[in-house]
Amino acid sequence: MSAVESVLIVGTGLIGTSVALALREHDVAVHLADRDPGAVRLARELGAGVEWVPGGPAVDLAVIAVPPQYVAGELLALQRQGAARHYTDVASVKALPLAEAVRLGCDTASYIAGHPLAGRERSGPAAARADLFLGRPWAYCPTAATSPEAVETLLGVIKLCGGEAVRVDAEEHDRAVAVVSHAPHVTASAVAARLAEAPETALGLAGQGVRDVTRIAAGDPALWTGILSGNALPVAEVLEAVAADLNAAAAALREAASSRDEAMARVTELLRRGVAGTGRIPGKHGGPAKTYVTVQVLVGDRPGELARLFQVAEEAGVNIEDVRLEHARGLPLGAAELFVHPQAAEPLAEALRAHGWHVP
Amino acid sequence: MSAVESVLIVGTGLIGTSVALALREHDVAVHLADRDPGAVRLARELGAGVEWVPGGPAVDLAVIAVPPQYVAGELLALQRQGAARHYTDVASVKALPLAEAVRLGCDTASYIAGHPLAGRERSGPAAARADLFLGRPWAYCPTAATSPEAVETLLGVIKLCGGEAVRVDAEEHDRAVAVVSHAPHVTASAVAARLAEAPETALGLAGQGVRDVTRIAAGDPALWTGILSGNALPVAEVLEAVAADLNAAAAALREAASSRDEAMARVTELLRRGVAGTGRIPGKHGGPAKTYVTVQVLVGDRPGELARLFQVAEEAGVNIEDVRLEHARGLPLGAAELFVHPQAAEPLAEALRAHGWHVP
Repeated sequence: MSAVESVLIVGTGLIGTSVALALREHDVAVHLADRDPGAVRLARELGAGVEWVPGGPAVDLAVIAVPPQYVAGELLALQRQGAARHYTDVASVKALPLAEAVRLGCDTASYIAGHPLAGRERSGPAAARADLFLGRPWAYCPTAATSPEAVETLLGVIKLCGGEAVRVDAEEHDRAVAVVSHAPHVTASAVAARLAEAPETALGLAGQGVRDVTRIAAGDPALWTGILSGNALPVAEVLEAVAADLNAAAAALREAASSRDEAMARVTELLRRGVAGTGRIPGKHGGPAKTYVTVQVLVGDRPGELARLFQVAEEAGVNIEDVRLEHARGLPLGAAELFVHPQAAEPLAEALRAHGWHVP
Repeated sequence: MSAVESVLIVGTGLIGTSVALALREHDVAVHLADRDPGAVRLARELGAGVEWVPGGPAVDLAVIAVPPQYVAGELLALQRQGAARHYTDVASVKALPLAEAVRLGCDTASYIAGHPLAGRERSGPAAARADLFLGRPWAYCPTAATSPEAVETLLGVIKLCGGEAVRVDAEEHDRAVAVVSHAPHVTASAVAARLAEAPETALGLAGQGVRDVTRIAAGDPALWTGILSGNALPVAEVLEAVAADLNAAAAALREAASSRDEAMARVTELLRRGVAGTGRIPGKHGGPAKTYVTVQVLVGDRPGELARLFQVAEEAGVNIEDVRLEHARGLPLGAAELFVHPQAAEPLAEALRAHGWHVP
């Protein structure tokens, strides 16, 4: 793997600036460019690098961190200027920029398409962080045309950023993110759309389940239209499969309502497939999904309540894997749900009770 | 509201035993019955009341806490024994037990259908807690036949349990829970079913979004088949609306892929309706949904990390409204996302930084 000494970041948004910050920690010379001079200035002030002056010596790698539909055009312009020896991008779809690059006549040997699977609900350089890619998958998609040197250069940058390189075909990548990201987003929107038209009474009966299902549907429609548009066919295919399952479930429910109870077996079958699917999502630390048990405890809505609770867990030597807070409607009280390893549940419950917590 | 002095709980599962525990705290005489003698014994040992001996004086209210399809049969049997002056149930669908009660010839004057909107992922008497209903909505559905005394008796019990009584028509109730609970569950199953059939690569690219959308799909298929079967038509209607939106989005994406870009406007429109829907879910404390901002901080995977973090928040006088932990794949490191009021974000970030935390 050849050492990467200089990088050009084109597009100093969340991802571009985070790459820059990560590379600066390894003393890579980072040049910054963006259509918006304010974004470059902010990234510079955050210590992400220096403003790019076109016409200088070619850098080792140019990272094109712009929306999918602009990647190929940017690539062509940079190649014409001889800005870098190698080029990559970070767009969340991969077949589109690769096809566009060929269509525009870019040099495809020096271009290696990439996609770090990292993001935040916030955007822009101010939200950037050097550790954004730590332990996260970073997909890269070499083609027959890609030079081994381009791949090696990108792998060097992924390593410096702390990412986990995942080699994947562009079409395979796009089908994968359609299943695990893009189609779930649209489906959450369709469930949330029902809430938009439901009477107030219905919303008053909402619990944690529908909050979880619809959380991502709050995302920016313009941003998501761009993403979906760049991965239209794979997303359409997944949405059609989801819709077919839902229509089949609806048909079975209508049959069951006319007292043909065996129709419900088809609904059970869908629910079973769903359980199997959730079981396949990898757990934390990249290992297989682990089964945690929950310890519930009643907490008040005051500063310090959770601090004391975690203090007790620490003293009991218990590691809390995840936390959820469910507040009681209309009252400054709620249940904290603490996810722990099965063998830690009883010691934690006992320790909390011994300190006066209400653990059922 | 007449004082409730004696109650019979039929079905000492999670809900029945929780009602019993709540009433015991107010010195109501509670009698316990269940088909399973072990469940009654456990509930009794938890302090939920005494075992019911049929043939004694009628109690003020019998709470029928059995699955929806058995409510009316149980009601008829209890009324024939003269077990109580009034009767209610806690099933998560309401039109079915009401219709069955009429069909079986029950006395509908003394029966008031109810549904406390509370639950846990665990079930059975051992999971019961006296505070389960605290501040939670408790729907009740009087009909033209229901006697005012039956309603008053139930309202007394809801008050003793700390619930918030919500008067609602049975059909309206069933349509509401179809939208905010039953159909979201089936939709989550349909998204999770795609994960069951996806290649391993796809699962490796899964992030927090798809975890949220599919979390409830891990629920027990047998339990959910029963719930869905009892609310078949309202759920079918919502599922058809979701499927129609998804098919329309898929069609728009296919059109857009053939370069008819205006088709994407229809996808944007669905995403916008989704955003509007999420905005209607009530926030904690029953008030309007509040906008919290998040403070992200890098934490290690050791006991005590979160305790120290919450300690710092307490010292800074900041109340953390919610927490999410996102662990980095393959590394014992993760980002904790702390939800706080907008004005608390900067003080919290500063306090954390001052204590050596990495806050971007």
